[in-house]
Amino acid sequence: MSVLVVGSIALDTIKTPLEEHADLLGGSASYAAVAASFFAPVNLVGVVGDDFPRAHVELFERRGIDLAGLQTAAGKTFRWSGEYMWDLNTRETRSVELNVFETFTPTLPETYRATPIVLLANIAPGLQHHVLDQIRAPKFIIADTMDLWINIAKDELISLLARVDMLILNDGEARQLTGDTSLIRAGKAIQAMGPKFVAIKKGEHGCLLFGEGEFFSCPAFPLEDIHDPTGAGDTFAGGLAGCLSRFAGGGITFEDLRRAVVYGSVLASYNVEKFSLERLRTVTEDDIAERYRLFQRMSAFEAI
Amino acid sequence: MSVLVVGSIALDTIKTPLEEHADLLGGSASYAAVAASFFAPVNLVGVVGDDFPRAHVELFERRGIDLAGLQTAAGKTFRWSGEYMWDLNTRETRSVELNVFETFTPTLPETYRATPIVLLANIAPGLQHHVLDQIRAPKFIIADTMDLWINIAKDELISLLARVDMLILNDGEARQLTGDTSLIRAGKAIQAMGPKFVAIKKGEHGCLLFGEGEFFSCPAFPLEDIHDPTGAGDTFAGGLAGCLSRFAGGGITFEDLRRAVVYGSVLASYNVEKFSLERLRTVTEDDIAERYRLFQRMSAFEAI
Repeated sequence: MSVLVVGSIALDTIKTPLEEHADLLGGSASYAAVAASFFAPVNLVGVVGDDFPRAHVELFERRGIDLAGLQTAAGKTFRWSGEYMWDLNTRETRSVELNVFETFTPTLPETYRATPIVLLANIAPGLQHHVLDQIRAPKFIIADTMDLWINIAKDELISLLARVDMLILNDGEARQLTGDTSLIRAGKAIQAMGPKFVAIKKGEHGCLLFGEGEFFSCPAFPLEDIHDPTGAGDTFAGGLAGCLSRFAGGGITFEDLRRAVVYGSVLASYNVEKFSLERLRTVTEDDIAERYRLFQRMSAFEAI
Repeated sequence: MSVLVVGSIALDTIKTPLEEHADLLGGSASYAAVAASFFAPVNLVGVVGDDFPRAHVELFERRGIDLAGLQTAAGKTFRWSGEYMWDLNTRETRSVELNVFETFTPTLPETYRATPIVLLANIAPGLQHHVLDQIRAPKFIIADTMDLWINIAKDELISLLARVDMLILNDGEARQLTGDTSLIRAGKAIQAMGPKFVAIKKGEHGCLLFGEGEFFSCPAFPLEDIHDPTGAGDTFAGGLAGCLSRFAGGGITFEDLRRAVVYGSVLASYNVEKFSLERLRTVTEDDIAERYRLFQRMSAFEAI
């Protein structure tokens, strides 16, 4: 069962305390689509400029991603540049050039409209609404978001929440959206805004998943070295959505979501090991299965 | 199999954004001894002044704690006063009066010297060394510490690490002790200083346990409201030590430690629900078992 991924496609320039690389493949949809492709057929919707390197398109093709929804517009691809501070936990945006992304309208090819799992990766809530207006009979809709939209498009984001099954956001964003310092209260407050399920990402501290009277705490994989945190959240969302598509037939249960959160975390933990999508380019299904088992081992303890 | 608990016994005055209470039972040994008493016989070593309320002694007695090592000195009991900020995560010490604690020497009654499980709750590393000089044939030695000792008694703390099986400390302290911002590298660096096992407490984010080639990530219980975080770490250490004493006969495995960390977390999660030791005074074995099962439920996911 396939997954629709809509979001940004970018060329990133990323500086960490140790390295700097330019014109890397980036954007929420790039990470999410490649991560989802390990579990399911993926339909991608996004826009690139006529400067977009052929090698990046080939990565999508090699992952079997359907590119009928990939628009190429005259002009330059969306560019983002950011710098990570010494602890790799905080980052500053150095520059943003919207370019062809400024006038992007996510139009779904007819063949995409009945995709059962929909991942609205991080883009403006207005565009996320526009995608939902075009889909038919979805089984499960996931939205990702970011602090920017809570600041400048809060009303549209809140009306979106009534239309989705699950919201993914990080701890700071959950506190910002609800005004509550407790992540437990914040998660429940967001559920009250619409989505049955909420995943709050906590970076090095893992992820909290809220369901209907259910709760799951997923640990973070104990990485000693992180090379580039860019796209970790998008990769998480993509892995989660891809994994869910395996279960969509019979309705998605909280047990399915637990597993999907772990798979999303596995993919994200690989992603940060190298810059851009370099690690996702080489990771194998065996690698993914092995780290899933390590997640189990590191969170298991005996019953009483 | 019994547990030796050595640490401070205090009268606390605690202010939170909502409440303030004076002359509460506090101190690292008080919390740790009461928490351990749910699992094992406890031998307590500490000092109080002649102003120490009889009701507090009665709580220890009701929990069956051996008080042969509880010294009563002429003068006032150690007093600590602190204030928690709005998010209950940061606190400021308002005043410290060492009083009888200033000249405290932890002398072990003869009957305590062969206690198999030793918990050196948070006190000066010099006093922790002095306790170890008096014990015979210990099976497992756990030390707790705090930022103060890393600042003013680092050498004594480091020499202590070569004498203990396990160190418990919080995330900020682990970073401070090792100078490493990564908790994963910090945990391993502390193991290299001596203790086979290290537990790094992360408050609302749970706890990381490092063993020999083993790793366990314990979630935090999802509490919506915390009334008083004081003593959570001491309670965790006491619950953990008490739980381990059940397994000490056959040697302590990493699986035993996983369970002990969860039990410690269960006790700590109850402790913060009320001021001082009020919640530990009423919690039952059934409550503890019920929350242990909730910890399992919230961290379990299906194998592949």
